[in-house]
Amino acid sequence: MRLLLINPNISDSVSALILAEAQRSAAPGTEIDVVTAPLGVAYIETRFEALIGAYATAQLAGEHHAGYDAVVVAAFGDPGLTALREVLPVPVTGLTEAALASAHLLGHRISVIAISQRIQAWYREIIEGYGFGSRLASIRALDRPLASIGGIQDAHAAALKALAERAVDEDGAEVIVLAGAPLAGLARSLHGQLPVPVVDGVSSAVRHAETLVALQPGRALHGSFAAPPAKPHQGLPAAIARLLHAGRR
Amino acid sequence: MRLLLINPNISDSVSALILAEAQRSAAPGTEIDVVTAPLGVAYIETRFEALIGAYATAQLAGEHHAGYDAVVVAAFGDPGLTALREVLPVPVTGLTEAALASAHLLGHRISVIAISQRIQAWYREIIEGYGFGSRLASIRALDRPLASIGGIQDAHAAALKALAERAVDEDGAEVIVLAGAPLAGLARSLHGQLPVPVVDGVSSAVRHAETLVALQPGRALHGSFAAPPAKPHQGLPAAIARLLHAGRR
Amino acid sequence: MRLLLINPNISDSVSALILAEAQRSAAPGTEIDVVTAPLGVAYIETRFEALIGAYATAQLAGEHHAGYDAVVVAAFGDPGLTALREVLPVPVTGLTEAALASAHLLGHRISVIAISQRIQAWYREIIEGYGFGSRLASIRALDRPLASIGGIQDAHAAALKALAERAVDEDGAEVIVLAGAPLAGLARSLHGQLPVPVVDGVSSAVRHAETLVALQPGRALHGSFAAPPAKPHQGLPAAIARLLHAGRR
Amino acid sequence: MRLLLINPNISDSVSALILAEAQRSAAPGTEIDVVTAPLGVAYIETRFEALIGAYATAQLAGEHHAGYDAVVVAAFGDPGLTALREVLPVPVTGLTEAALASAHLLGHRISVIAISQRIQAWYREIIEGYGFGSRLASIRALDRPLASIGGIQDAHAAALKALAERAVDEDGAEVIVLAGAPLAGLARSLHGQLPVPVVDGVSSAVRHAETLVALQPGRALHGSFAAPPAKPHQGLPAAIARLLHAGRR
Amino acid sequence: MRLLLINPNISDSVSALILAEAQRSAAPGTEIDVVTAPLGVAYIETRFEALIGAYATAQLAGEHHAGYDAVVVAAFGDPGLTALREVLPVPVTGLTEAALASAHLLGHRISVIAISQRIQAWYREIIEGYGFGSRLASIRALDRPLASIGGIQDAHAAALKALAERAVDEDGAEVIVLAGAPLAGLARSLHGQLPVPVVDGVSSAVRHAETLVALQPGRALHGSFAAPPAKPHQGLPAAIARLLHAGRR
Amino acid sequence: MRLLLINPNISDSVSALILAEAQRSAAPGTEIDVVTAPLGVAYIETRFEALIGAYATAQLAGEHHAGYDAVVVAAFGDPGLTALREVLPVPVTGLTEAALASAHLLGHRISVIAISQRIQAWYREIIEGYGFGSRLASIRALDRPLASIGGIQDAHAAALKALAERAVDEDGAEVIVLAGAPLAGLARSLHGQLPVPVVDGVSSAVRHAETLVALQPGRALHGSFAAPPAKPHQGLPAAIARLLHAGRR
Repeated sequence: MRLLLINPNISDSVSALILAEAQRSAAPGTEIDVVTAPLGVAYIETRFEALIGAYATAQLAGEHHAGYDAVVVAAFGDPGLTALREVLPVPVTGLTEAALASAHLLGHRISVIAISQRIQAWYREIIEGYGFGSRLASIRALDRPLASIGGIQDAHAAALKALAERAVDEDGAEVIVLAGAPLAGLARSLHGQLPVPVVDGVSSAVRHAETLVALQPGRALHGSFAAPPAKPHQGLPAAIARLLHAGRR
Repeated sequence: MRLLLINPNISDSVSALILAEAQRSAAPGTEIDVVTAPLGVAYIETRFEALIGAYATAQLAGEHHAGYDAVVVAAFGDPGLTALREVLPVPVTGLTEAALASAHLLGHRISVIAISQRIQAWYREIIEGYGFGSRLASIRALDRPLASIGGIQDAHAAALKALAERAVDEDGAEVIVLAGAPLAGLARSLHGQLPVPVVDGVSSAVRHAETLVALQPGRALHGSFAAPPAKPHQGLPAAIARLLHAGRR
Repeated sequence: MRLLLINPNISDSVSALILAEAQRSAAPGTEIDVVTAPLGVAYIETRFEALIGAYATAQLAGEHHAGYDAVVVAAFGDPGLTALREVLPVPVTGLTEAALASAHLLGHRISVIAISQRIQAWYREIIEGYGFGSRLASIRALDRPLASIGGIQDAHAAALKALAERAVDEDGAEVIVLAGAPLAGLARSLHGQLPVPVVDGVSSAVRHAETLVALQPGRALHGSFAAPPAKPHQGLPAAIARLLHAGRR
Repeated sequence: MRLLLINPNISDSVSALILAEAQRSAAPGTEIDVVTAPLGVAYIETRFEALIGAYATAQLAGEHHAGYDAVVVAAFGDPGLTALREVLPVPVTGLTEAALASAHLLGHRISVIAISQRIQAWYREIIEGYGFGSRLASIRALDRPLASIGGIQDAHAAALKALAERAVDEDGAEVIVLAGAPLAGLARSLHGQLPVPVVDGVSSAVRHAETLVALQPGRALHGSFAAPPAKPHQGLPAAIARLLHAGRR
Repeated sequence: MRLLLINPNISDSVSALILAEAQRSAAPGTEIDVVTAPLGVAYIETRFEALIGAYATAQLAGEHHAGYDAVVVAAFGDPGLTALREVLPVPVTGLTEAALASAHLLGHRISVIAISQRIQAWYREIIEGYGFGSRLASIRALDRPLASIGGIQDAHAAALKALAERAVDEDGAEVIVLAGAPLAGLARSLHGQLPVPVVDGVSSAVRHAETLVALQPGRALHGSFAAPPAKPHQGLPAAIARLLHAGRR
Repeated sequence: MRLLLINPNISDSVSALILAEAQRSAAPGTEIDVVTAPLGVAYIETRFEALIGAYATAQLAGEHHAGYDAVVVAAFGDPGLTALREVLPVPVTGLTEAALASAHLLGHRISVIAISQRIQAWYREIIEGYGFGSRLASIRALDRPLASIGGIQDAHAAALKALAERAVDEDGAEVIVLAGAPLAGLARSLHGQLPVPVVDGVSSAVRHAETLVALQPGRALHGSFAAPPAKPHQGLPAAIARLLHAGRR
């Protein structure tokens, strides 16, 4: 099985973290590739940056998806995920959606630990849009400058663990989600150090993508996740235009 | 006062409908300009098409917003609206948001009349995301091929009116929203022919944009609609990059 | 265009504040009149006081609405608003509904700043009844005696500003609504002093009333905002009885 | 124990139905009095009529409550109920609230059978305002002219029973509430004829009022159901002014 | 009238508290019997303990219900209640459901005072499952070891009262529910000492059970509270098997 | 890896279906065992039957869980699942929870196809309790006698497929869940015959159980899924008592 993970941001150091955790998590025989956005920002905290990241993700998906069994949008917040689900011929998931899929099997109230104050509002909108608002105990986030996006989990491990502990003690969290590709692998490092189960987006996405391939549930030919109806278009990059057509194949 | 209306689609015929209704609706002294997306699809029905439209809207806003007092995303579904609200230095609204602002002042239960079956799921997600789910009586839509996107309201006026009547009779609609820029002006044509108030997105957006300019509520310097924090970026079109910086001015 | 603003309370000093802000906010050519309740309390904080204010509002509307293009219930909490919408032949709005219509175009999470602790429960019920509960970040209120209802914004300006700042910092407010006719004009005074947009009920109601007149959406002849069905009545004041009949004209 | 039931409408024939069912339902030793509004409409179907009925109810409560152990607002929709709860020194309930208290002890999904099409929107708002929206299976209503408000249950018994049967079969109703004082006693007549439990507002209100008296839960001296704070008033009928003061005794 | 109260736990001391408060609360002529679970735990705090308590309750109901007019599950959390409603030929209620029925007639926002930190999550699930989530102001609980389950209200009366006061002051509680059979009678002891109405589960359940018997609403022969359809079974205790059949009589 | 699947019902024929589908779905190297309840009913349709099934499941888990890496409650409705999560030292899931975890990765609106009319209310309660109510498009069910519980999918394959097609066409289902262990394997048989993805509970549960084992998220030592606090108990079967203690190890 071959999985394509798309980093919607320009951060090669984060792509390296994603690849490492994905390879540690994958079942034997699963091959992982990670591609990094050639255009965009270092990491997404806002709706506008997510708009950019979604477009970059769509372009990368259009260029690279051929030959893969499933695709993962490898940023918490899942920019472009539901759009890609309409046009890709294979299963697609994202870090938020997959982390929630794991978390809701482990406890009822879920807290999300995030890397910046600003990122919280966007995360909340995505989680509520997925219908998980009633299960969200809290989002807690670092409140300090991030010197290096690829080095957050090393530089701030103690602070991140302390945020998780406060989520358990003060917010009633029964499961912790460590949110954001820059934290890929941190759940593994913290194993046994928190009093509730801890979930990571990358490993969840890899495992759930494998499951979706294995279950062979079939494609949507009807409803809002079927391919968009044919209509005139112009001026689109070839990779985007290809997806508009590919969905209908 | 100068308003910029952005058609996120490539349809010049729809831009003409938007301009005509906007000019009919604007207060004396308001100048209206409409720009049309150079890249994209004929009309947006799906999340993937909205992803494209949002990116095109952002580019157009970056290129053209200077000198305008407010900006309107002139497609129902408001692709890119909340993202632009973070980065534009002036008020911004969209057809869905503005139509709901009018409709909720006229009745409690709101029905939306749409141009295609497929478009309904996307509309519903947007309306629920705005928190108006509990006031949505129904969405009803045409179920026939659309020969010409600019000619829908002429070709299907009777069918659209019949959908509105069914929304009143069967769904308990107390207000009708005629959804989509291709229907701009239809509420005016139907005046007095439906038993409940009827709202149009373009005229609502123009009027509410004028109100936001007049009220001078101030900009967001804090919270999720403040400008995105500064961070590295690369490879972005100049118009997009400018917005990333402009928001922080 | 002529607008009738009804102060449901007996406070002439508040009527003067309403008139001043309404005149500052109205478009050129709009004439404003404010009438004050001859019976009632100084200001409404509770459901029982709102019951009284709603009845006074209905009487005033019955006596005075002729010749006006729209009517505004000029108290936050909108006593009698949805009832009047059934019987008046012209658009009608209120300070809460109109402030929410402005606020939801400016940000997602809305905080309301109020003049007394007791008033908060009633405000919350009204806002939730309008379906805006999911967008309400908080209500914060003064907790001190109000020597003069017409002088609150002068006497407590700093405290009110501090409440708004706490709503932004602690509750995540993205828009502030300064609630209550006694605060009419305060948003204007605070311009540029708060880090998020600030909305005022009176100016919002005047502007949205103008918009509803301009849009000409048509009247409800069907559904729950059509005129009440004819039936026997007795003992009603002439102004109330007139409204029962007027709605059916 | 003495209970005061207030008919907010001018219909003596309905007051007679209320009295008869209340007396059949009351525990031994409970005395029942019913007072009828001197001003108002024949029956309430709309928000505007409810505004009138609430004011009439408040006046009657102010005039008559002395010497009673509890008060019942004897119209479905409970006009004025939550307002009176602030000012009366004894427990107060209403037909809707009490019927829901019975119904939610008998099944999860509740359907309401009503006397007119128009009345449904108002009922739904009240029930949702009480927080019972998620348990409401449906509201179904007669769709024919009502010749005599006091004679509805005789004239339309078969149609009302058929509506209840459809609510069970098509809407999944697990409990039926026969709504409206004009239907007082009908649940008793239909005993054994419907396949799910059937609840009546008047008998429920009488029984629950007795329970509230017996439980002696104590009065609200704090929060939104304590008496309104003292403040200037003018022009109020003596009975209304007395309640403003009485609550603070 | 004869009422059967089932203590799902093995605590005879709590059964004694239940019996005493039930007898003080019952109307003249009502006979009360309390049975205690022969198997189970001292008191239920968790879902697993509730699973055990529900099974014990079902067995006790099967063995003892004959000859009673109504049955009460006498533990807050109501283990087995909705299951028993399907199979018992008489009305059945529980402490949580009945306390909520009382509380929602006394105020809008309800706080629950509980005997242990751990018990809160289970209580919240039950209350939300009943559809009362929107009316729950808070759950507050003791955070100390419970030496004797039958002696909690004596040992911790001051702490429990302090929790109620904090619920009023900090959470906006308008009604207090003292939760759990071990607190049976405490509301009576605290009469007049709290600034909002106080409700007790046992007295509420006794009174509401009497009301359900008096109202004679009829049994469910259709829908999800009718008796389970006949089907093969094996290995069941006689008392459980009897209920499977009894419901269909 | 070793998985224990518990059939809470007495139906050996269904256990055989469960085993076959589980073995087809499991990853290489996963060993599957299925145990069948010695006491209970043929299949669970109601809350009372679920109460029995939950107790049987707990007993089987207590007797058999040692040596397994994860446990699956192999009935749709997941009787006993959240209770077992408190006491088992390994991950546990159930058919409903796991099917929803798969389905929400495939589309937004989910419809459930069930084997009997009566079973729908129970399913709906469970799904809403998990917080998935907003994503449930519909539940549709067979309405005919079930001659043999193990033979349903053979006898009624066409009717079940037709229900799924109606859920897509009339209810807007974007994913279909074939509900109930008696339908184990049907999704596989219907592969490619429905226009939207189709999900099966048994294969989902097996795959997600494997994922939970692989992710090693850690156990709950705090919060509502930690082991129940120690307290007196009596009269419990050894297998149940063992679980009370085992959770605290």
